Amino acid sequence: MSLLTEHRSGTVDLGPAAALSCRECGQRYPLSPIFACSECFGPLEIAYDLPAGDPEALRSRIESGPNSIWRYAPLLPVPADVAGKPNLNPGGTPLVRADRLAAELGVTGELHVKDDSGNPTHSFKDRVVACAVEAARAFGFTTLSCSSTGNLAGAVGAAAARAGLRSCVFIPHDLEHAKVTAAAVYGGELVGIEGSYDDVNRFCSELIGDPAGEGWGFVNVNLRPYYAEGSKTLAYEICEQLGWRLPDQLVVPIASGSQLTKIDKALRELITLGLVEDKPYKIFGAQAEGCSPVSQAFKNGHDVIRPVRPATIAKSLAIGNPADGPYVLDIARRTGGAVEDVTDEQIVDAIKLLARTEGIFAETAGGVTVGVTRKLLADGVLDPSLTTVVLNTGEGLKTLDAVSPTTGPTAVIRPDLAAFLDAGLA
Amino acid sequence: MSLLTEHRSGTVDLGPAAALSCRECGQRYPLSPIFACSECFGPLEIAYDLPAGDPEALRSRIESGPNSIWRYAPLLPVPADVAGKPNLNPGGTPLVRADRLAAELGVTGELHVKDDSGNPTHSFKDRVVACAVEAARAFGFTTLSCSSTGNLAGAVGAAAARAGLRSCVFIPHDLEHAKVTAAAVYGGELVGIEGSYDDVNRFCSELIGDPAGEGWGFVNVNLRPYYAEGSKTLAYEICEQLGWRLPDQLVVPIASGSQLTKIDKALRELITLGLVEDKPYKIFGAQAEGCSPVSQAFKNGHDVIRPVRPATIAKSLAIGNPADGPYVLDIARRTGGAVEDVTDEQIVDAIKLLARTEGIFAETAGGVTVGVTRKLLADGVLDPSLTTVVLNTGEGLKTLDAVSPTTGPTAVIRPDLAAFLDAGLA
Repeated sequence: MSLLTEHRSGTVDLGPAAALSCRECGQRYPLSPIFACSECFGPLEIAYDLPAGDPEALRSRIESGPNSIWRYAPLLPVPADVAGKPNLNPGGTPLVRADRLAAELGVTGELHVKDDSGNPTHSFKDRVVACAVEAARAFGFTTLSCSSTGNLAGAVGAAAARAGLRSCVFIPHDLEHAKVTAAAVYGGELVGIEGSYDDVNRFCSELIGDPAGEGWGFVNVNLRPYYAEGSKTLAYEICEQLGWRLPDQLVVPIASGSQLTKIDKALRELITLGLVEDKPYKIFGAQAEGCSPVSQAFKNGHDVIRPVRPATIAKSLAIGNPADGPYVLDIARRTGGAVEDVTDEQIVDAIKLLARTEGIFAETAGGVTVGVTRKLLADGVLDPSLTTVVLNTGEGLKTLDAVSPTTGPTAVIRPDLAAFLDAGLA
Repeated sequence: MSLLTEHRSGTVDLGPAAALSCRECGQRYPLSPIFACSECFGPLEIAYDLPAGDPEALRSRIESGPNSIWRYAPLLPVPADVAGKPNLNPGGTPLVRADRLAAELGVTGELHVKDDSGNPTHSFKDRVVACAVEAARAFGFTTLSCSSTGNLAGAVGAAAARAGLRSCVFIPHDLEHAKVTAAAVYGGELVGIEGSYDDVNRFCSELIGDPAGEGWGFVNVNLRPYYAEGSKTLAYEICEQLGWRLPDQLVVPIASGSQLTKIDKALRELITLGLVEDKPYKIFGAQAEGCSPVSQAFKNGHDVIRPVRPATIAKSLAIGNPADGPYVLDIARRTGGAVEDVTDEQIVDAIKLLARTEGIFAETAGGVTVGVTRKLLADGVLDPSLTTVVLNTGEGLKTLDAVSPTTGPTAVIRPDLAAFLDAGLA
C-alpha cells in the first residue's frame, strides 16, 4: 500500500471519481496509480460519485459543454476544469446515418456508423489517452509511456506533446517504417525493443516495478483504470447523437475487450442517471477469425478464454489473451448479444463495402465490425428492423496494406477521347 | 448561352446564391455550370443575396446549426435543407490554441492552428467538394469528376459514394500506389492517364466540351464557382471559434490561390453582416520555394505571375501557374500582409516543430504555413504580439515520405533494464 501513501490520494482531484474498486471482490482503494487488487489480483476500475438530481439539468450542462469528450467531464475521472488544460480534446466524432450501407445489408431499421477516425490521431485511442493524461497530471507523473504496435504509440506521443509531458513509447524493433514514422514525429522518446510485442510488455512491467520507472505513467498499465474510462465517451456520444436514446443493437470490436465493457458501463450509467429511457439493448462483439479467442469461447459456451497466437490483418485487434474477455462474454450473454468473427478476406470486403456505400475508409478494425454485422444479419442473429450502431474505431490510411493488393485504377488510358470511349467509361 | 437555357437556371435552388458574377468585368449570369465569362473570359464567382437584418438573430441561427460547414448554409451556395441530404458533413474542425508553439516561435499574443486534418478524408478538400456536390445535384449531374494527384481524388470518391453519385476521377498513371489505393477504395471509376498531370487536365477540358461528358460535374472545372465557395467556411469557423472575432493575422497556403481569396471574401462578408466587429486584418500567403510564383511576384512588386515548373515535396501546393495568383497579390497588398516561401528542409523542420509542440501531424502544406510563419516572425513581418491563425489543411499520414528519412526511434535496445539504463533513457 506504499504507493497509496506516497501519492496522498486524498488530495487527488479527478472530478466524480471517488475510489478504485476491484471488479472481482469489490474491495475499494483510494485513487492512486494501481491497477490490480492486492486482495484477489482482480482488475481495478473507477467507482464514481455521479451527479444526483434532475436529469434535465445534467443534460443541459452536457449539451452546453465543448464539442469533445470533455462535455462528459461530470461522468469521467477528470477534474472539472479539464477542457481548459492543454490536451488533444478528442471526441465529438460523427455518428453517420448509413442508409446506403443499410440497403446493401438488408437493414430496414436505422443503421448508424460511429466513425472515430476523425479523432486527432485518427483512432479511438485519443479518448482513452486523454483520460490517462489527466490521471498522470493528478499523480504528478512527468513521463507518459506505453507499449504499442501502432495506434497507441501515436496517440501517446501526440497527447504528451500537447500536454508538455515527456513521452517514452516502447515498440518492437521491427515495426513497419510507416508506423514508426507516425509515432516518432511527435518528438518523444521512441524505443525499439529487440524482441516480440510480448517481450516489450514484459520489459515494461519490469520497468514499472523498478526505481528507474518512478514518475512514469504507463497509460495502459499503472494508469489503466483511468485510461479505460475514456471508452465510455463512445457510448455517451452515440446516445446523445441519437437524441438521448439507447440504440437497440451495438457492434463493437474486441481487442482486450475493455472498450466493450466500458460501453456497457456507460449505457447503464445513462439509464441510472435518467439521461436515456431504460430499455433493453444488445451488445455484439466482433473479432477477426485469426484472433478470435472470445468468439470461440462464446460459441462453445465457455466462461474462460483460451489464449491464441494472433494471425490476422486486423493488427489493432490482435490480442491473443484479452484481459477483459470473460467480462465481454458476460455482457454479450446478459444483453442477449453475441460474439462473432470474420476472415481476413471478409474484413477486406467489408472495408470496401463501407467505403463504397458511405465514403468512410476504415482501418481493419472497422472492417471487422462491418463484416461481423453483415454475418450476424445473414445468420439472423442481428435484427434488421431495429436501430443498430456499428463502430469504426480507426483510419484506413493506417492500414493501407490490407486493401492495397486488391484496389487500383479501373482503367489506364491514353489522354484522348477515343481511348476514353473505347474503355466504356462514358 | 445554350447551357444556361438547358439547365433552366430559374428553378435552381442554391440558397442565398443569386447569380454568377465575373470577377473581372462584373457581368452577371444565371446560376449554371459555367466558370468563365463569355464577355472577357474572367473567372466567375457566386454573387449572393445575403440575409439582411439583425446580426444577433443570424448568429443564433448559425450557433444552433449542426457542427459542420452546414451551420453556415445561409452564407453558402447550397439549399437550406442541405444538412438532411447524404453528404460527408465536413468542417467543425478544431482551432487549437498553440501556446507551446507560440513559446518556441517567440509569439507573445494568441497563436492558433486551424487543424483541418479532422475532416472526413483528412484535408480541407472535403469542404469544397461538399459544396460542389450540392451544385451537381442542383444541375442534375449524375457523375462527379475531377483531375487530381492526391487529396482531391479521395475527397471526390468519398463524397460521391456517400451521396450515391457515380464518380470518375482522372489521375496520372504513375501516381504512388498508396495515393491510388486511398482514392480507389471508394469504389468509383479511377482512371490512370498515360501522361503528366498537365495531360490529365487537358484531357478533362476536352471531355467537358464533348457530348461524352454530358451529365458530368467536374468539381474544379465546370462546378468551380460553387466548389471554391466551400473554402469560405474555414474563415467562418475561425471567427466563430475566436468568439465571433476577426484574427489580426492569418497565414494561408497557396496552391491555385483560391482558398486565400475565399477566406478574404468570407471575412469581408462577416464584417458586412455585422457578425464580427470591423477592424483591420492581414492575410499572409505561404508557398514552397520549389513552387513559389506568387511569392516571387510579391517580392518583385509584380502584378502578374510568371509560371514555374514545380519541384517541391509540398505536392498538394505544387501548382506552377496558379489561377488566382493575381488576386492573392491584391489581397496581400491591400490587407498589409505578404507572401513568403520556405525550402523543403524548412518544411520538414516545421512539420516536426508542430508535431513536437502541439501533437499535430501536418501534411507538407501545414509545414509550409508553419515554416512561413516562423520566417515572417524572424524577419519582423508578422507581429508576435497579435492574434495569429495558421492553417493546417491536411494530414501527415498522407505525406509520410516527407519526414520518414529523418524520423525514427531514438534508441533500439535489448528488453532488459540494464540496456535501458545504459541508453540513458531513465
